[in-house]
Amino acid sequence: MTDLSTVPAYGAFEAKAPLERTTISRRPVGEHDVLIEIGYAGICHSDVHQARHEWGEGIFPMVPGHEIAGVVAAVGPGVTRYAVGDRVGVGCYVDSCRECDNCRAGLEQYCDGVVFTYNSRYADGQPTYGGYSTHIVVHERYVLRIPDALPLDAAAPLLCAGITLYSPLAHWRAGPGTRVAVVGLGGLGHLGVRIAHAMGAEVTVLSQSLRKEADGRRFGAAHFHATSDPATFEKLAGSFDLILNTVSASLDLDAYLGLLRLNGTLVMLGVPEEPLPVETWSLFTNRRSLSGSMNGSVRETQAMLDLCAEHGIGAEIELIRAEEINAAYERLTAGDVRYRFVIDASTIA
Amino acid sequence: MTDLSTVPAYGAFEAKAPLERTTISRRPVGEHDVLIEIGYAGICHSDVHQARHEWGEGIFPMVPGHEIAGVVAAVGPGVTRYAVGDRVGVGCYVDSCRECDNCRAGLEQYCDGVVFTYNSRYADGQPTYGGYSTHIVVHERYVLRIPDALPLDAAAPLLCAGITLYSPLAHWRAGPGTRVAVVGLGGLGHLGVRIAHAMGAEVTVLSQSLRKEADGRRFGAAHFHATSDPATFEKLAGSFDLILNTVSASLDLDAYLGLLRLNGTLVMLGVPEEPLPVETWSLFTNRRSLSGSMNGSVRETQAMLDLCAEHGIGAEIELIRAEEINAAYERLTAGDVRYRFVIDASTIA
Repeated sequence: MTDLSTVPAYGAFEAKAPLERTTISRRPVGEHDVLIEIGYAGICHSDVHQARHEWGEGIFPMVPGHEIAGVVAAVGPGVTRYAVGDRVGVGCYVDSCRECDNCRAGLEQYCDGVVFTYNSRYADGQPTYGGYSTHIVVHERYVLRIPDALPLDAAAPLLCAGITLYSPLAHWRAGPGTRVAVVGLGGLGHLGVRIAHAMGAEVTVLSQSLRKEADGRRFGAAHFHATSDPATFEKLAGSFDLILNTVSASLDLDAYLGLLRLNGTLVMLGVPEEPLPVETWSLFTNRRSLSGSMNGSVRETQAMLDLCAEHGIGAEIELIRAEEINAAYERLTAGDVRYRFVIDASTIA
Repeated sequence: MTDLSTVPAYGAFEAKAPLERTTISRRPVGEHDVLIEIGYAGICHSDVHQARHEWGEGIFPMVPGHEIAGVVAAVGPGVTRYAVGDRVGVGCYVDSCRECDNCRAGLEQYCDGVVFTYNSRYADGQPTYGGYSTHIVVHERYVLRIPDALPLDAAAPLLCAGITLYSPLAHWRAGPGTRVAVVGLGGLGHLGVRIAHAMGAEVTVLSQSLRKEADGRRFGAAHFHATSDPATFEKLAGSFDLILNTVSASLDLDAYLGLLRLNGTLVMLGVPEEPLPVETWSLFTNRRSLSGSMNGSVRETQAMLDLCAEHGIGAEIELIRAEEINAAYERLTAGDVRYRFVIDASTIA
């Protein structure tokens, strides 16, 4: 049995410090807990923001990682859904209040008491540590099953990037007959294109340049346009039912709203540093909406994994060793990754 | 028969000029046209904006008025829906392309070729003149039936203010079990409260002060809060399914978005002069939407009039004579009206 008081991990000891090898303590496997031997952990842009303290007060030491794929190593006596050897995943959160309207509606991601997988605190005040580690202990309610058809390394990024795109696609009913645009073809965007295409929508990529066009079409995009070309915004005016904006940089929201047809919605998935201005006229025309969406529920995440297994959808990844994490952060910040870094957790031990 | 080449009207001859008595020419009654003897015309805040040139290039002379109630005086030979003597109304538009997706879906207000009731041009280039006049000629497709139960003077403001509130209430499914907030208790807001209450929603008024609380409760509000009190925004956080913002002044959108519960929508109905900033986090939390809505379709407007007749809902009005229009504009700009000015069109002749 693993010694849960000294679990190997990679973490930052203070804001903006490089991540380094350390050990953390995981709680003992409780009645309904699953102990997971982590195989792979994806690197999400939000890991960089939080480790660098860019989203406000961080909890240090910080072990990031909320795209976790692995295998069940032990279960508590009350666990009914999982058994040792099962292929499982953990996403952006590891607990919630389980009692509020949102939890009862099965929308844990909108629970005010949601406990994020790292840089957060359990109800008892203990900090959470994420997936840049060899093991994690999670209540079975927040554990997902990874179908056999999905390789664990390519599945890891589905747990955040995948569900972050799937949830709005499902909520706003993307499917046959709907036109979906994905803004930005990065870690989130490339999965958005694959998933929207699998759902049957007609997918357009809106990327800064045409540099990634071949990739976009390979992922399932029917159309690919450069946002650096002003003609794009004239040509595509009033075209889309749904635009998923995966870009964190500040955008001209009115220009993108102008691309929506009747009842269309522009969904923000990235977090610009500044509030963005909106013209009311952009919303009046075509009864448009500007919305936001946060990852997804446990139920949705399982549905997303099952859909991805059915369609053979994984993330396109660059597998790295733990000692490459800091360099990967630099490359990610520079937009230099196709399309998601995934840490081989066996290199953390 | 009325001489349609010299129809009395009140209009502005140039931007920011006071309105004065004049005559205009209406087109001959065509195959599918209805000639309406106007009884009453409501004064909408947008009349003031347009006459004062505050929404860009205006067409002068300008005869405002898009809240028109009257009686059919003549019909063209192809008219099937209306007969002489019928009580009818005309709202914000008098034509549309009738061929686009939005027109075919019965959502003429979102037609790119919509022809507004005034300060607009027909397909043939002729300018439109609104309801501050004794007669108007309109294609029967854009004419509404005013049920007998509604007095014509109190019905006039329903044609813009009423439908502008009804349409988002219907589109976002206000009804039993939903909590609706109306921001601003003016010409639009007071009808929003009455209509939302008639639909069965639990209605809250958010007004600058508690000055109009008794009125708000009389209109059907269950709750009334002052937005000048910061505690309001704490107390009501996460409360509403739908917030209808009737205020044209710039608001702190993030503060109002914070009042929405899961999947809630803040709908902009007024037009602030400046683009307003939005924090993406405000949209993430509770999967909120910021939306806009433009008056309503012909079909919806008729449904709204029928609902209002059933529930005895009219606007609360101050009836004025034509020569009081300029003074009314001043009072409207100062927010000094309870709750809608309506011009007695018999005083225009």
